[in-house]
Amino acid sequence: MKKKLFYLSVALMGLAMAVSCCGKQEEVKDDAANADAAIDAIMQRKSVRAYTGDTIPCEMIDKLLRAAVAAPSGMDVRPWHIVVMTDKSQYEECFAGNFNMDKFMQAGAVFIFCADTTVTRPPRENPDAPAVTTPNPIWRDDMGACTENFLVAVEALKLGAVWTACYPFHDRMDPVAKYLQLPGNIVPYSIVPVGYPAGENQPKDKWDESRIHYNKW
Amino acid sequence: MKKKLFYLSVALMGLAMAVSCCGKQEEVKDDAANADAAIDAIMQRKSVRAYTGDTIPCEMIDKLLRAAVAAPSGMDVRPWHIVVMTDKSQYEECFAGNFNMDKFMQAGAVFIFCADTTVTRPPRENPDAPAVTTPNPIWRDDMGACTENFLVAVEALKLGAVWTACYPFHDRMDPVAKYLQLPGNIVPYSIVPVGYPAGENQPKDKWDESRIHYNKW
Repeated sequence: MKKKLFYLSVALMGLAMAVSCCGKQEEVKDDAANADAAIDAIMQRKSVRAYTGDTIPCEMIDKLLRAAVAAPSGMDVRPWHIVVMTDKSQYEECFAGNFNMDKFMQAGAVFIFCADTTVTRPPRENPDAPAVTTPNPIWRDDMGACTENFLVAVEALKLGAVWTACYPFHDRMDPVAKYLQLPGNIVPYSIVPVGYPAGENQPKDKWDESRIHYNKW
Repeated sequence: MKKKLFYLSVALMGLAMAVSCCGKQEEVKDDAANADAAIDAIMQRKSVRAYTGDTIPCEMIDKLLRAAVAAPSGMDVRPWHIVVMTDKSQYEECFAGNFNMDKFMQAGAVFIFCADTTVTRPPRENPDAPAVTTPNPIWRDDMGACTENFLVAVEALKLGAVWTACYPFHDRMDPVAKYLQLPGNIVPYSIVPVGYPAGENQPKDKWDESRIHYNKW
């Protein structure tokens, strides 16, 4: 009887140890797997320029937009406004003369990332004074981060997109600003067609040791 | 003796089941889980301003750098150069007067994202002509994407960082450019201290419906 209890307790201890060890490994492995998945989306992001034309589900659009506006923002100004265009009948006028029109027409949706170039706040040296509107010297950096967050999320969802520059090219900006009747402080920054990829697309390997410098130029 | 064998085999079976259950964790996660993990890194990214001071392993630095330079680049110019500073004895001179010095000093490494503001190529209208150097009108957008890729990778690796603006503020740019003896076409764009987070940090919820516009402003 004693021996029976002994072997039973050995069996239970073995199980308990294995399960507890499993639990910890599971956590560590999950952390590592999640890190790999996130970095993989960054590394796999590529410019996709041909799409099937299928509509993108609202839930996906919602995820993309939320990822975009989770970007960092200097002084927490959050200069972004995003116009989601799905109505193709508007493209000809809105994107008049844009050499990317063929990509826009195939996309499930076209996202116009716009920026408020001003900031309205009390002056830093007198926070109790009335708010004043001044130019924001770093709106463009926030918009770059916002567009890139969006593109990594596009890759994560296995959609395809390409960042087409709008600012500072007036031939691309002016038709958009005119068609959307954007307020004077709002500029169209980037135009990103998104769709289900048509064909195969591979990311570029951009690694170049000569661009990395340790402790000196 | 039979009983002894029976309990021993129960113990071994228990162990075997536990180990096999562990093995399943190694199986590749499905697409949905990978998508969630990637978008989670974007949504969880936050500005972390206090660090433990511990050194960051080389393999992590390598992953961060590779993520950074996987950014999209207009006309594929890839304007980025990244200076990795780990030698704290250089900080006082390199970052002279920078109000973020306290964060830099605690970090495991400080990354200075620099940009080549020019592009050297044959003219577009005559690809066979000799290369000419001209200003790159969109280097700043590439640098924003590069810095943001880096920050999302930092979050994925459960490190902490904060994007501190450098360009276009000459009081921050000039000491860096002078100390590193940067060539005239290279500007220090952003300075990002990275470390193991000290304390708790939460991402901001930046969602604001008023910034999203469907088919019109």
